[in-house]
Amino acid sequence: MQWNLMYDWIGCGNLGHCQVFNKPEAMGKVIDAATMLGRTTGLVIVDCSATYDTVGVLKDAVNHGCCVVLANKKPLTCAYEDFKKLTSHFRQIRFESTVGAGLPVIASVTRIIASGDPVSRIVGSLSGTLGYVMSELEDGKKISEVVKTAKALGYTEPDPRDDLSGMDVARKALILARLLGQQISMENINVESLYPSELGPEVMSTTDFLESGLAKLDETIEERVKAASLRGNVLRYVCVIGSTGCQVGLQEVPKDSALGRLRGSDNVVEIYSRCYESSPLVIQGAGAGNDTTAAGVLADIIDLQDLFQTRA
Amino acid sequence: MQWNLMYDWIGCGNLGHCQVFNKPEAMGKVIDAATMLGRTTGLVIVDCSATYDTVGVLKDAVNHGCCVVLANKKPLTCAYEDFKKLTSHFRQIRFESTVGAGLPVIASVTRIIASGDPVSRIVGSLSGTLGYVMSELEDGKKISEVVKTAKALGYTEPDPRDDLSGMDVARKALILARLLGQQISMENINVESLYPSELGPEVMSTTDFLESGLAKLDETIEERVKAASLRGNVLRYVCVIGSTGCQVGLQEVPKDSALGRLRGSDNVVEIYSRCYESSPLVIQGAGAGNDTTAAGVLADIIDLQDLFQTRA
Repeated sequence: MQWNLMYDWIGCGNLGHCQVFNKPEAMGKVIDAATMLGRTTGLVIVDCSATYDTVGVLKDAVNHGCCVVLANKKPLTCAYEDFKKLTSHFRQIRFESTVGAGLPVIASVTRIIASGDPVSRIVGSLSGTLGYVMSELEDGKKISEVVKTAKALGYTEPDPRDDLSGMDVARKALILARLLGQQISMENINVESLYPSELGPEVMSTTDFLESGLAKLDETIEERVKAASLRGNVLRYVCVIGSTGCQVGLQEVPKDSALGRLRGSDNVVEIYSRCYESSPLVIQGAGAGNDTTAAGVLADIIDLQDLFQTRA
Repeated sequence: MQWNLMYDWIGCGNLGHCQVFNKPEAMGKVIDAATMLGRTTGLVIVDCSATYDTVGVLKDAVNHGCCVVLANKKPLTCAYEDFKKLTSHFRQIRFESTVGAGLPVIASVTRIIASGDPVSRIVGSLSGTLGYVMSELEDGKKISEVVKTAKALGYTEPDPRDDLSGMDVARKALILARLLGQQISMENINVESLYPSELGPEVMSTTDFLESGLAKLDETIEERVKAASLRGNVLRYVCVIGSTGCQVGLQEVPKDSALGRLRGSDNVVEIYSRCYESSPLVIQGAGAGNDTTAAGVLADIIDLQDLFQTRA
């Protein structure tokens, strides 16, 4: 088990005590602290790891009345029962940084839900890497070139297939879908990978994929980009969360929509509701990076302080 | 004194009691309720009026430990001391609907501030009417035609000069500037009116303004639109809140920025900070209307519930 950061925050409005746990014995320590301090003092367990292994300790912490702040998507994207348990005291958990880093996506959707305005659809470009790739393709470049450039610029994971598979986008989409009340899991999401299984990591190395595999995608993608352009559209890699379920993959969007105008690596989310019906509420900005993710986590922690205000 | 709505909400998570006050004796009743219930029960005073007259009762209510939710901009835009007093217990006041109606502008700026990310600049198109006017001008139409069409569509105030003066935008800008910590007042904001004083309401009636006055603006505005276009820019009526102060008026913005791409009556706000330095955090959507304003007020009320959660 590897925990990048497990950060506990005790007190109301003051950083009383801070400790980084990165060893397995951390679990025992966290539960000890939660048992003693969870319900009364405002203990916040912050999970900035990228593992499923923290689910157990997080559920225990919630049971003890602790608050939880997550940048880690995985505890919210495993079994639906775990999501339900973690969010059973909804005001005690915050997870802004799981979708679009510090962008106020979760906070905004939560506000819309709280106001009783029914959300009908969320459409988002939630991968900076794929956002960059798609806007470069629009300029007539080949996907093999664009992915290699993106890798050289440090925009991709070490194996770019981790981005191209769409799985990270699917996790974010699942969190948004569950936030809207959909009782679904990863297997209910239709995820379109940008590479076929015969170019997958089980079949060839990252080097082989980059040197020979990737070029095999050029023709098909180029055709789709051109076909979209003929219809006045552009191709984007998006998640669509609607009343009929959740899809992740390539989609044609109007050139003059917020998604269609997107350039570079910014994330963009369009939220449609009764109040934002014809023209969506749009949130756009950098959706990745250490700074913005940390800012989102910190804002979440601060936001929890209301639960532990002293009433004068 | 006219109070459109003064709404009190007692209890935690339930709408326990609701009353609409619209007579002067309301002030006494509100203070009576605040004295008895303010500090302990989560009494929320909601001001959806459009008057300065509520400032006194709101300050008294805050003194008694009540929460306050505002859609009314005026209590936050009068004397700086009043703003300071009203926001002295910052977690007990919410005013999302004062800027961009239900759009999560205040919530997002507050989150960024809470995370310690210094906001360097906010640029916004915060008038749906002026947003519509400016995007129509871009298509080569005359301002006299566009304003008349906007009035016919119900987009403007009964006297369109109330929109064209920029004062409503200035109030929103002042709220954002004060939120960023600037100790300024309306008189410190440089507001550019779209009509000169010789076409003002003291000089001519609304009918005269529409029938003869307005056309006098056509030539100057047309020249500015063309000059901007020659530089690859478009003209927008914006507020700019920076470290050097606060301006409201016409400004050239790049055609391919969020502000430059704006069409129709949507509001758009660009927030620049250390995390969102080269590419801003952008929030866009309908920024006016009964539904969205009410949704913003309701979300604010619900958001206050954390202050009165029962700790199990």
